[in-house]
Amino acid sequence: MTKIVILGGSFAGLTAAFDLKRKLKDEVDITVISKSKNFVFIPSLIWVPFGWRKPEDISFDLKPVLENKGIKFVHAEATKIIPDKNLVETTSGNYEYDFLVIATGPDLHFSEVEGLGPNGGYTTSICTIDHALHAGEKWDEFVKNPGPIVIGATQKASCFGAAYEYVFNIEYAARKAGIRDKVSITFVTSEPFLGNFGLGGVGKSQKMTEYFFKKVGIRGITNVAIEKITPNEIYLSNGEVLPYKYAMIIPPFLGVKAIRDSGLGNEAGFIPVDDTYKHVNYDNIYAAGVAVAVKYPEPTQIPIGVPKTGYMSEVMARVAVDNIISKVLGKNHAKKLAFADIAPLCVMDAGNMGVFFMASRNFKPRKYHILFPGPWSHWMKVWFEKYYIWKMRNGYTQLP
Amino acid sequence: MTKIVILGGSFAGLTAAFDLKRKLKDEVDITVISKSKNFVFIPSLIWVPFGWRKPEDISFDLKPVLENKGIKFVHAEATKIIPDKNLVETTSGNYEYDFLVIATGPDLHFSEVEGLGPNGGYTTSICTIDHALHAGEKWDEFVKNPGPIVIGATQKASCFGAAYEYVFNIEYAARKAGIRDKVSITFVTSEPFLGNFGLGGVGKSQKMTEYFFKKVGIRGITNVAIEKITPNEIYLSNGEVLPYKYAMIIPPFLGVKAIRDSGLGNEAGFIPVDDTYKHVNYDNIYAAGVAVAVKYPEPTQIPIGVPKTGYMSEVMARVAVDNIISKVLGKNHAKKLAFADIAPLCVMDAGNMGVFFMASRNFKPRKYHILFPGPWSHWMKVWFEKYYIWKMRNGYTQLP
Repeated sequence: MTKIVILGGSFAGLTAAFDLKRKLKDEVDITVISKSKNFVFIPSLIWVPFGWRKPEDISFDLKPVLENKGIKFVHAEATKIIPDKNLVETTSGNYEYDFLVIATGPDLHFSEVEGLGPNGGYTTSICTIDHALHAGEKWDEFVKNPGPIVIGATQKASCFGAAYEYVFNIEYAARKAGIRDKVSITFVTSEPFLGNFGLGGVGKSQKMTEYFFKKVGIRGITNVAIEKITPNEIYLSNGEVLPYKYAMIIPPFLGVKAIRDSGLGNEAGFIPVDDTYKHVNYDNIYAAGVAVAVKYPEPTQIPIGVPKTGYMSEVMARVAVDNIISKVLGKNHAKKLAFADIAPLCVMDAGNMGVFFMASRNFKPRKYHILFPGPWSHWMKVWFEKYYIWKMRNGYTQLP
Repeated sequence: MTKIVILGGSFAGLTAAFDLKRKLKDEVDITVISKSKNFVFIPSLIWVPFGWRKPEDISFDLKPVLENKGIKFVHAEATKIIPDKNLVETTSGNYEYDFLVIATGPDLHFSEVEGLGPNGGYTTSICTIDHALHAGEKWDEFVKNPGPIVIGATQKASCFGAAYEYVFNIEYAARKAGIRDKVSITFVTSEPFLGNFGLGGVGKSQKMTEYFFKKVGIRGITNVAIEKITPNEIYLSNGEVLPYKYAMIIPPFLGVKAIRDSGLGNEAGFIPVDDTYKHVNYDNIYAAGVAVAVKYPEPTQIPIGVPKTGYMSEVMARVAVDNIISKVLGKNHAKKLAFADIAPLCVMDAGNMGVFFMASRNFKPRKYHILFPGPWSHWMKVWFEKYYIWKMRNGYTQLP
């Protein structure tokens, strides 16, 4: 029986686990190892600080869901991968594999910027449930004593979309809380222009973002790094100092420590893969999701990351699964899909409205792109949230 | 300039108006004549009685929206169509046409059953905003003084889906109101089996409906006509008499009076069309939506109608538009799509869950069908409602 170990139980990891088990059944022994005992629908974390979602609304226990499908679950953190021994060391024992799927997501590298982040720093984050709950406590305090808000994403951040969603949601929340007139909102980003999203923009996303920023009174500062953060001020690389009373800043992303410690990743700890999502140096190691190394296609003044959304993570996982199955069954078939060629599909929420976009490819040139703002986008995300959590809780990864 | 008159401003009528205007621009002079001054998103009427939607949430004024696109709007009821003169008589003047699109929807034929309906009868209806508001007043009274509930659809009704949605929603509303234990719920239908929907069922829709009825405690009675209704009892054709304190019954559908008075329709007043949605006897009269005559494909013990959902109405309108354009531009091209071959696509709400289905054809045999229940279905309908109203308010009928 082929042993497959999957590191990570989020979008890419779960998709790989369910798909491999459904397609290979008793030919495989699958173990998912995750440092989180839950699946979390990360896109909804932007709503947690305002009380619009509770953690239990957007997460479920991985163990029963996986075991129900005949997949083992180990709640542990991988500490080292030893590819020459086909071995993963974890905080709860060692695991051998015939195939390894690395779907760990990122490490959030708050320490790269002095004063950044909820633990030991002064800014909030919405990258995990704990961070989002903390961001909510800070928000509740802020509502009683409002002032300047700064939302943004640092140099080397990837997930710009979440920062945009959050800035529009906080603007909306400030209106609902009746404090909008006491609040200035500034958006700070390492992107070369607003609406770049780490994808070079999609259609008229720059104009549209600028239009909506102007419409609701958000000031945008692009092309800047954050140099340091004090309890009341944010120091930017362009010399500007922004006072703040509430700040949510997406940090730089790194590959997880286990990868960095194993020499499997690039300098930032992300896994270099070929177009089959196989590690460039190891035939039995695949990667999918945020763990995959992707370079922004052109030089930028400030280093920025490329978003690997839940949808893209799933697509990568499916390609990897296809190629693993081919090897397990001894077929000579390789499915290839370069990251640049994944067709992005995304709905971004802006409180009571939002924007839907899709395009022919992640990176330009693109054959087509569609970008639609509309009040229904909010409800599309709500629907998708419910659908997706239901789908994953039931292991229905054969569905779109 | 070609004069096009469209009777009706709902799904089919608006789709035809916007599409014809966008594609033919100044070559056509389009007038929409509707007895309703609003577009109403009919699928959401099931939520109005429980206060989950207000009329203004699910409707908009037709006049400014149409005029904004260069389409005339006449708020009037057509009273007669004189095809030999290419003339429509209305309660507000006469209108000549080169092409006529009949998209009037149905007349609700409450008088066919003694005691049926909100005007002069004892049961409620959710077929119009006024009916739904009345059904809400009755619901509010009922909550204070609960008893047996009967929901259903009579002989010759078409819109069975709405009755199913309503029975599940009222069951959910009864639970929310804390009166579920004081309430029995019976579902009465002319369909030959539960989950037939007037389409002969879709996949396992019968088993699924029976399962959910059992699960939430709804008794189903199929294959019956309603003979008469008194203030407290409903008399069925199988001899059974159902006591009730709250009843919502979908009535028999007829074609509108103007059609019946003009000799254009079949015995029930629906328009017989060919597969281009052209009237079988008139080259410049088209029909789309509920006004179109469609026969259930096999004999049933009790006569039943076939549902023409908003989606199907749109599809019919698009085919008709294509053929009208072809004639206006002098092209020799006919687009054909028999009603039986329309691929249905539907989300039905059940309060806090629902079901999504699609199939290759309206009628069997079908190449494929998909039927999925899930809690996300509710949110899919909510999203679609917002999307669709936004789309129609902006005339974006080029979108799906």
